[in-house]
Amino acid sequence: MWKEENNQLSRSFKFTNFIEAFAFMTKVAFVAEKMNHHPSWSNTYNTVNITLSTHDEGNVVTSKDKKLADEIDKLFSGGNSIFKS
Amino acid sequence: MWKEENNQLSRSFKFTNFIEAFAFMTKVAFVAEKMNHHPSWSNTYNTVNITLSTHDEGNVVTSKDKKLADEIDKLFSGGNSIFKS
Amino acid sequence: MWKEENNQLSRSFKFTNFIEAFAFMTKVAFVAEKMNHHPSWSNTYNTVNITLSTHDEGNVVTSKDKKLADEIDKLFSGGNSIFKS
Amino acid sequence: MWKEENNQLSRSFKFTNFIEAFAFMTKVAFVAEKMNHHPSWSNTYNTVNITLSTHDEGNVVTSKDKKLADEIDKLFSGGNSIFKS
Repeated sequence: MWKEENNQLSRSFKFTNFIEAFAFMTKVAFVAEKMNHHPSWSNTYNTVNITLSTHDEGNVVTSKDKKLADEIDKLFSGGNSIFKS
Repeated sequence: MWKEENNQLSRSFKFTNFIEAFAFMTKVAFVAEKMNHHPSWSNTYNTVNITLSTHDEGNVVTSKDKKLADEIDKLFSGGNSIFKS
Repeated sequence: MWKEENNQLSRSFKFTNFIEAFAFMTKVAFVAEKMNHHPSWSNTYNTVNITLSTHDEGNVVTSKDKKLADEIDKLFSGGNSIFKS
Repeated sequence: MWKEENNQLSRSFKFTNFIEAFAFMTKVAFVAEKMNHHPSWSNTYNTVNITLSTHDEGNVVTSKDKKLADEIDKLFSGGNSIFKS
């Protein structure tokens, strides 16, 4: 779950390997770019740490961060929303 | 399922949207690059069509294509292999 | 250059290898998703073929396709717009 | 340039925007996965910070890190190695 601390939202995600972690990052990148609201994030092998805050508002947590956090959660849990043709 | 026809393996994959389709392509791209065996593939919105044959062997289906097809199937069905931290 | 033929715009792009080709596709994917206007495209190793038409308008070339084609050209020629820190 | 400090190599890269930064990360991800040697890295908008060390050798800088650093430099400066068809 996301933690709100020091004026930012943060959450850690773990995957089976680097390829799965990076594919998740690719999905998040699309959503961030569409929202024009980008995370501060780091990756080591199968772990992705994401931190969200709104720079334009003086580095506090805003509704933009909460919306992006929600979208990221959907991308994470939605891995099995793929349907077969 | 993969079809073997005209000396090539082909399969079509469908996703919930473009982002999911492109994230799948990213995973396949990693595996293809690692195997140094690349697909001929096309994408329109949520659909990805993949065709495999071995150019160096005169455009026939070889064990390399079958191995790549297996790996692609694992990536496709493994969307839910992500575990939560 | 883009060709307009059979009610679609198409252009072929060539790169030094698969990694460069796929990184270009990733950039195009971001722009397409932001515009909510997606290409029909195919890739084999270092070659990317892109076809643009507007399905909602009965598969003709519209200003949306021309705009996306312009953006793609910028991404292609802008490979060297990266600046060093 | 890369700095060697605290038993790790690190370098910061800057791009024109998020799309260019993430496309660079995609290229680095391919090379890292092929070498089976992955970076610790972070990104905020147009900036990518990469840190390299070898965990299996007790978190020191090894020849693997130097090789990956070289490959990353080639990817960064090679943005203009794309040729037109």
